[in-house]
Amino acid sequence: MRPFASGRSVVLWCVLLAAASPRSVPRPPAAEDGYDLWLRYRLVDDAGRLAQYRAALTHLVVEGDSPTLRAARDELSFGLAGLLGSAIPGADSVRRDGALIAGTPATSPLVAALPLADDLRRAGDEGFVLRALRVRGRQAIVIAGNSGAGVLYGAFHLLRLIQTGTPLGALAVVGAPKLRLRLLDHWDNLDRTEERGYAGRSLWDWTHLPDSIDPRYRDYARANASLGINGTVLTNVNANAGVLAPDFLAKVAALASVLRPYGVRVYLTARFSAPIELAGLGTADPLDSAVRAWWRRKVDEIYRVVPDFGGFVVKANSEGQPGPQDYGRTHADGANMLADALAPHGGVVMWRAFVYSNDVPTDRVRQAYDEFTPQDGKFRENVLLQVKNGPLDFQPREPFHPLFGAMPRTPLMMELQITKEYLGQDTHLAFLAPLWEEALRADTYARGPGSTVGHEIRGLAGVANVGSDRDWCGSDLNQANWYAFGRLAWDYTLSSAAIADEWIRMTFSNDPRVVGPVKAMTLASREAVVNYMTPLGLAHQMARGHHYGPGPWVAGGRADQTSVYFNRADTAGLGFDRTATGSNAVRQYFPPVRRRFADRDSVPETLLLWFHHVGWSQRLRSGRTLWQELLSHYQAGVDTVRWMEQTWDGLQGLVDSERFRRVQAFLRIQEVEARWWRDASVSYWQSFSHLPLPPGYEAPAHSLDWYRQLRCPPDPRKPRCDALTNNGTP
Amino acid sequence: MRPFASGRSVVLWCVLLAAASPRSVPRPPAAEDGYDLWLRYRLVDDAGRLAQYRAALTHLVVEGDSPTLRAARDELSFGLAGLLGSAIPGADSVRRDGALIAGTPATSPLVAALPLADDLRRAGDEGFVLRALRVRGRQAIVIAGNSGAGVLYGAFHLLRLIQTGTPLGALAVVGAPKLRLRLLDHWDNLDRTEERGYAGRSLWDWTHLPDSIDPRYRDYARANASLGINGTVLTNVNANAGVLAPDFLAKVAALASVLRPYGVRVYLTARFSAPIELAGLGTADPLDSAVRAWWRRKVDEIYRVVPDFGGFVVKANSEGQPGPQDYGRTHADGANMLADALAPHGGVVMWRAFVYSNDVPTDRVRQAYDEFTPQDGKFRENVLLQVKNGPLDFQPREPFHPLFGAMPRTPLMMELQITKEYLGQDTHLAFLAPLWEEALRADTYARGPGSTVGHEIRGLAGVANVGSDRDWCGSDLNQANWYAFGRLAWDYTLSSAAIADEWIRMTFSNDPRVVGPVKAMTLASREAVVNYMTPLGLAHQMARGHHYGPGPWVAGGRADQTSVYFNRADTAGLGFDRTATGSNAVRQYFPPVRRRFADRDSVPETLLLWFHHVGWSQRLRSGRTLWQELLSHYQAGVDTVRWMEQTWDGLQGLVDSERFRRVQAFLRIQEVEARWWRDASVSYWQSFSHLPLPPGYEAPAHSLDWYRQLRCPPDPRKPRCDALTNNGTP
Repeated sequence: MRPFASGRSVVLWCVLLAAASPRSVPRPPAAEDGYDLWLRYRLVDDAGRLAQYRAALTHLVVEGDSPTLRAARDELSFGLAGLLGSAIPGADSVRRDGALIAGTPATSPLVAALPLADDLRRAGDEGFVLRALRVRGRQAIVIAGNSGAGVLYGAFHLLRLIQTGTPLGALAVVGAPKLRLRLLDHWDNLDRTEERGYAGRSLWDWTHLPDSIDPRYRDYARANASLGINGTVLTNVNANAGVLAPDFLAKVAALASVLRPYGVRVYLTARFSAPIELAGLGTADPLDSAVRAWWRRKVDEIYRVVPDFGGFVVKANSEGQPGPQDYGRTHADGANMLADALAPHGGVVMWRAFVYSNDVPTDRVRQAYDEFTPQDGKFRENVLLQVKNGPLDFQPREPFHPLFGAMPRTPLMMELQITKEYLGQDTHLAFLAPLWEEALRADTYARGPGSTVGHEIRGLAGVANVGSDRDWCGSDLNQANWYAFGRLAWDYTLSSAAIADEWIRMTFSNDPRVVGPVKAMTLASREAVVNYMTPLGLAHQMARGHHYGPGPWVAGGRADQTSVYFNRADTAGLGFDRTATGSNAVRQYFPPVRRRFADRDSVPETLLLWFHHVGWSQRLRSGRTLWQELLSHYQAGVDTVRWMEQTWDGLQGLVDSERFRRVQAFLRIQEVEARWWRDASVSYWQSFSHLPLPPGYEAPAHSLDWYRQLRCPPDPRKPRCDALTNNGTP
Repeated sequence: MRPFASGRSVVLWCVLLAAASPRSVPRPPAAEDGYDLWLRYRLVDDAGRLAQYRAALTHLVVEGDSPTLRAARDELSFGLAGLLGSAIPGADSVRRDGALIAGTPATSPLVAALPLADDLRRAGDEGFVLRALRVRGRQAIVIAGNSGAGVLYGAFHLLRLIQTGTPLGALAVVGAPKLRLRLLDHWDNLDRTEERGYAGRSLWDWTHLPDSIDPRYRDYARANASLGINGTVLTNVNANAGVLAPDFLAKVAALASVLRPYGVRVYLTARFSAPIELAGLGTADPLDSAVRAWWRRKVDEIYRVVPDFGGFVVKANSEGQPGPQDYGRTHADGANMLADALAPHGGVVMWRAFVYSNDVPTDRVRQAYDEFTPQDGKFRENVLLQVKNGPLDFQPREPFHPLFGAMPRTPLMMELQITKEYLGQDTHLAFLAPLWEEALRADTYARGPGSTVGHEIRGLAGVANVGSDRDWCGSDLNQANWYAFGRLAWDYTLSSAAIADEWIRMTFSNDPRVVGPVKAMTLASREAVVNYMTPLGLAHQMARGHHYGPGPWVAGGRADQTSVYFNRADTAGLGFDRTATGSNAVRQYFPPVRRRFADRDSVPETLLLWFHHVGWSQRLRSGRTLWQELLSHYQAGVDTVRWMEQTWDGLQGLVDSERFRRVQAFLRIQEVEARWWRDASVSYWQSFSHLPLPPGYEAPAHSLDWYRQLRCPPDPRKPRCDALTNNGTP
């Protein structure tokens, strides 16, 4: 419908080309709505490279037939047709130079005959081998895998290399995932709301499933497969037992059928009290034989309709969810019951360590470690303990979770949050790869130096930021986080910079005038958010009722859900003493880390106030006082957003106008709100420090009372406070 | 992202064409996601006609410049480029045969010089003249209007003629709207939920307005302008005063700016208690001077930011909404207060006659008439009373509302519901033009024969079915209802069949193998819904808590919100006696209508049980008993859906696969649910009639108890009862 819609303009252009008409099209080039994500297979715009690719890829030979091999072949046909400007024909044998051969040794005699045995061994079950070599005297490129999924991942990797302008002449890549479980967790409810979604409604149109299959499901699967994501948890951890009822399982089965060819297995969240809610049992006690029998029958029933069902994710005895402790049993008792039901089918239980009991602990961040380490070794083999990256809750910055490395006899997964619940939700630019990289590379010293968090885990789960919005993620730049999650799940040693580089080239352009500035913005963005929201190790300073704007003054109600509990601001200083003189949470880390964090001289300044209560006028390593340092971080946050705005403005004409304008509008909002965070926070801290702002420092636009009284518009989950822009009354 | 996405395939096709390459594209033709609506400007597929159009339209001459004339020019450029396969160039004068001239006499000397004065007089303020004539010796087509909006409407009309394959040789059309007010009413809340929306969330992204302007707003404006819709009420009649606060008015102003060039004025709903809620006044009494002054200032403030603001829609003293009766004042008092504030700016008040007071009346359907007729003549000139098509509430079938024609001194508007709250919501096919045509053509006899409802109104308001879904309306076929509403608002004498014909040609194809079957389905669909839901004049038989599935047994709570109140089923018979022996609601109609409805021998059988309680074994005009007739209507409803399924199945290959599959899936659902309605209803009636089903009649799949106990899945607004398909337990 848009006059600038892509198909239309293209038709015009080619009719014009074909007819050599002198008439010109009165329209700018195609606008972009973001639906394509990073799978934008646009014509390679470097003529020399295009010629090389065309010569290297003249025909496609895929031996063997399976839904996954067909998916690989279709993606190669479609992707190369776009990238090279014309379809490359399929063939049943190598006919001339430029053969693209794809297959597994088991299904393809051609692949089986190639000298790839060593490489294929390294590739393992899910990996791939990409090689330029001669086959029957002809120049060829081969994509080989030990499974259809490996071939599919190799196909996407080859397309990525072309999208990013990589020469193929000496192609020799062996790719293999470093983690077995690479999952998106959808916190999606059965009524299509999302617990923390900022991109419209849930993708899963339960109402019309299984009768009507939205074409988006397949594109969702393609996007995941392009990154190697191999599982999806369809439902919210705050679970509804309804999804386990037969009617819903039929819907789940329909989704699983669409995702299966793309190597994406379906998982569900299990509500612990389901036997009571669905079957009317009097208990959900995991040691009760009727309960155990019910779960076994239910799991058998699931596998009848979803033969490759992955397993369950469980949030139990946390934030009011039912669990085994309701019956005086342990987490292990609960997890093992489900694990026993799943084991015969090869399914797993991912048991969340994010427990939030009804009692307020001495220090909220200690709870998971204290509760779970005594149970190490008590879980079945097919149970994984799923641990958030930090011990609190997906804050802009936290130290790594002390459970990593601390349960040597229990396989751990790491849970990350792709959806930006605490980092500006849909609107603010915050590229999260640096946050995740920081956690994955942190050294736990569990087994001596080099025991990084990445080494200590078996899988990565990311809370999805995907919804029904046309652009999937609520903003064009949020797509980068889905991309980065998938790439890190495949290989947690990848750098943020490398990931950003790929994503920008695939999503926007290989033009260095675009890649450079967008990469700089992207990589700076998370630290900007930390600075204007919660610098120097502060955390959990949101306003009551939403996780969007500032509320460092929030008090009352349950203590460990308030800001004052976490900031411990007083006239002496700021920060939570977690050393031996305080909660001693620091003791949960292995000694070298513990010592580093416990000592104010060695703790990273980024985590200073997480571990220490510091006097307002105390000098930090920079020579500046805490007060001065704090102010400068808040200001740096705002300044970085302003720089991002200017940088983006400079891309006008280099980025299509539709995405350009959308990003520009969101950056404007981000600046207003960065100032809101800075001004509200600084005003509040000043009410304790009683220290002046230095000359020239941007004074808060309003009084502390004004910020405290600010009430935001009706959207309960996404308050945009227009009073901030309008300078009106709150 | 879809491999079959239109732009991509087209690129391939033209590259192939251009290069005359022997390679073939391994993909089927473009799929369609429904975003284009009926503005699908695809290349004219009849070669002869295409040649004629190309010869008749060689260059475009638009004299004058205004945002609306630019919109007209842009639409012509864009639309003709698509339809003719190449852009037609702009020119500043008539250069050769084939000039397309557009403008107003005031801005275009060329138009002013043409002999169009009589036609332009007939076209009026908003109409247009479309003529093929010779200009300066050259063959030309002119689009003339007295205003930019007239030219824009003419441009869309010309494009429609081409889309539907109409020859232009003897073109001579004068188009003028029969109604002044042609509005969409959005029942949209400020948190992006919708009161009765089945197409995702509200279009209005309040959170990011005014900073970020979704490109969809402009396409929404284009779609409306293409039909002549000239106003939009942005907010729900169950109003939130928040929209009148300054922050929200800035957002409203941003939307108004996008809509203005397309002739679409913005209206808002006014919450009667806003002076209390926004300004802290102690009362909202319409005769209180402070209240009156507050509204005057508020209206002045609105006009400062939206200079062409249309006015207010008000739902007062109905279903718990505040209103003048809270202060012992009349509806006229309330409406006049707002009208006085709006009058200096030219705004209007649309005061809803849908009142639902706290007292249960003797007959729900009498209430509006009883309450409003005594106030005829007491409203200001700029107040319109907005009356639903029928006296109950948007049921599949109702008689026309007795207020039409009954308030000769008060201008009336008719309110229709485009969103299918009671007719299967997003999923069921129900083309509503026949329903609306029935109401608009009904003869009130208010001023003797020929006083049709259409003659008695000044405007038409339709409760929008538009949301954030990619296809705008929740299903491809629901788009027809937006289209039909707009066309009838422009000209209420158009026939359903003519409207369906246009819409199908523009939306799908001119291929007679498509037009014929789709038209037949479309035109039969509403009567099918009546038959399987509420045949023979039944109404309001939905299950408790939603307006989707059947619940003829619903009782308890407020009487006039129950099914049993409306069906009056007992062992004697069925139906609501509204004659003199009953509620005498029939008396509200003018005598010839009254007599016709009151007499069981002359009442249309389609309204039999609306007006009469009829014995189960009483003979109807067909010779069959009520029981037999009832059964045959329910069965006919199901049979029609089955026939629609078969008809649609026959279009495989003629309709693009994406839309084909979506519609097919929804028709399958509709059949299951038509059987649900039939079986639940027949079972319930049988518990009173104690009469057998005739031999061969499809027996209900389950017992009456089963249907009564059926509980539907979690989506609170759209229960799909999968147990129906699975034959499981409810």
